[in-house]
Amino acid sequence: MTTERLERAQGVMREHDVGALLVGPSADLRYLVGYEALPLERLTLLIVPATGEPRLVLPALELARAQDSGATDLVEPSPWTETEDPIDRVVTHLGDAAAGNLAVQDRLWTSFTLALQRALPSASWVPGSQVMRPLRIIKDADERQRLREVGRAIDEVHAQVPALLRPGRSEREVGRDIAELILEDHDEVSFVIVGSGPNGASPHHETGDRRLEEGDPVVVDIGGVRAGYCSDCTRDYVVGHVPPSYAQMHAVLEEAQEAAVQAVRPGVAAEAIDAAARDVIAAAGYGDHFIHRTGHGIGVEEHEEPWIVAGNTEPVETGMAFSVEPGIYLPGRFGARIEDIVLVSDEGVERLNHRPREILTAG
Amino acid sequence: MTTERLERAQGVMREHDVGALLVGPSADLRYLVGYEALPLERLTLLIVPATGEPRLVLPALELARAQDSGATDLVEPSPWTETEDPIDRVVTHLGDAAAGNLAVQDRLWTSFTLALQRALPSASWVPGSQVMRPLRIIKDADERQRLREVGRAIDEVHAQVPALLRPGRSEREVGRDIAELILEDHDEVSFVIVGSGPNGASPHHETGDRRLEEGDPVVVDIGGVRAGYCSDCTRDYVVGHVPPSYAQMHAVLEEAQEAAVQAVRPGVAAEAIDAAARDVIAAAGYGDHFIHRTGHGIGVEEHEEPWIVAGNTEPVETGMAFSVEPGIYLPGRFGARIEDIVLVSDEGVERLNHRPREILTAG
Repeated sequence: MTTERLERAQGVMREHDVGALLVGPSADLRYLVGYEALPLERLTLLIVPATGEPRLVLPALELARAQDSGATDLVEPSPWTETEDPIDRVVTHLGDAAAGNLAVQDRLWTSFTLALQRALPSASWVPGSQVMRPLRIIKDADERQRLREVGRAIDEVHAQVPALLRPGRSEREVGRDIAELILEDHDEVSFVIVGSGPNGASPHHETGDRRLEEGDPVVVDIGGVRAGYCSDCTRDYVVGHVPPSYAQMHAVLEEAQEAAVQAVRPGVAAEAIDAAARDVIAAAGYGDHFIHRTGHGIGVEEHEEPWIVAGNTEPVETGMAFSVEPGIYLPGRFGARIEDIVLVSDEGVERLNHRPREILTAG
Repeated sequence: MTTERLERAQGVMREHDVGALLVGPSADLRYLVGYEALPLERLTLLIVPATGEPRLVLPALELARAQDSGATDLVEPSPWTETEDPIDRVVTHLGDAAAGNLAVQDRLWTSFTLALQRALPSASWVPGSQVMRPLRIIKDADERQRLREVGRAIDEVHAQVPALLRPGRSEREVGRDIAELILEDHDEVSFVIVGSGPNGASPHHETGDRRLEEGDPVVVDIGGVRAGYCSDCTRDYVVGHVPPSYAQMHAVLEEAQEAAVQAVRPGVAAEAIDAAARDVIAAAGYGDHFIHRTGHGIGVEEHEEPWIVAGNTEPVETGMAFSVEPGIYLPGRFGARIEDIVLVSDEGVERLNHRPREILTAG
């Protein structure tokens, strides 16, 4: 990595009158300096002043890991020992920068933020995403390529799912097999959802003891991390013969997902993409059963901005990446969701998942 | 679960003039209401007023999971939908309780805390651990029993480690085998450290590509979760013949660990337990190479209070559980650490790990 992202962050900070950005173990820390810090009760905090040299306050114990990551080639490490109060060290390094607004990374533990607020009672505090959002929301050429590649990797897993869905197997067994397949071309498994029969009607059901039966619809929503970037793709399968009521519902969902993808182009409001899917589903009488937003951004995190949701009037722009994943959930019966990752391009939209979107029969 | 822990928290809050406790997805939430909430960008927040009924604000999408956990039998759920601002809902539920101090769970994401601070600009904010610490730091009879059982479970894994440490195998291969063994009698693997040769000198090294060689010392520090409680135990192995310099160093460490364990009894300052180990190591000339605290509390989290560290003058009490884990690290050569979990009892101390503490030869 280079210091380019740190310098861009400093540019945003100067524009927004932010004196310093404080970043704990998080995707933002990985994004800025390539260091995957452990989320410990011992404080690790990257201090990026609007002007001047960034420093990485970290437990002396973690110095070797930070060095191995290469982060200490980009920022000066400031290791603290077991009997020291790291907050004092942060205050010293901040110096005059503490006079401006201090941006705290969104996921820093509140205990650290409250300790910083006690130590700097006259400072003003703003969310770190004010600085990080403009950087992370637009993917550069390297990031787009990584998203394409991890998209292909998860497509390869979906291609092998039908062979796993046999009557009598439990969701958990299927989920373990899928996790192994994900690891063939990902570094990590992020999540594996196998929602069979009525479990498919609960969008965040993961896997359970339920065994597949002939005629079961099965929602398979899976993702992993490859070269630091996330995949996330959902397809719907049926074990054996497709129930006609499921086929009818799924046809509506296919139309809705296609309408939302086709709505994507630079300048369109995020909520208009949500509405494109929602209108099709509502017109078919399933409006009350599409109970979540249409999508979320994706990159170094599974879920990040932009949110594709009613009320988000911000236009999408070239370089944004997000999911388009409408769903219909009939409690007690079954559910369905179709999800692709898309990239906004100057030409409109580029899909990053290519497996067939219709119901796939298995078993 | 019952509402007993919620009521005890309310008692602490009334003592400390805390108007309400706000708990996001965390070990505290599991401890209070048994709900393992996902850490999402969508807010989940348990609101416990000092007097009156607690409420669980959560995304409507997560209601089914919260119901399955039984948490909604203890507290009234308050689900919010995708286009709503959940912070408004929190402010409404807080009502008059917002006039007192508000205790925010230590690990709540800072973005939520800053949003709460903006919505309630006149409130005072204190760390949630002020309320939770006195509850969680003393383990009740049921918790002690779970810690004993998970201690036995990790001992069983260590008993099988010597057979895995053969020359030519990589740390990663050994680590995968250990993870499988942990899952035989745990619900989750928390971490697996296999530090061979010079990697043993880095306390938080996990596993790598390094292959075991004849004469390698290997630090094996492993833990998992069983019935909601954590194990954590370190033993030192040597592949084949023990290098005399390692044997000499390890004898010092055995003496230091024994001295620290024997120092444990109700009323002794945490720092005195640390000093008991540190004095032995310093007297033998290794003082600069014991680079971390002697221990950490354990329970529903791997690392929790009390911290067994210089500067912590608080006495330990009957019912506290923590690790005693001195280590000696010679950079570039090798390292060693011996770790047991102990319970403070009226009689003094009860060890929860029972595997031999001397160097174990393998391979």
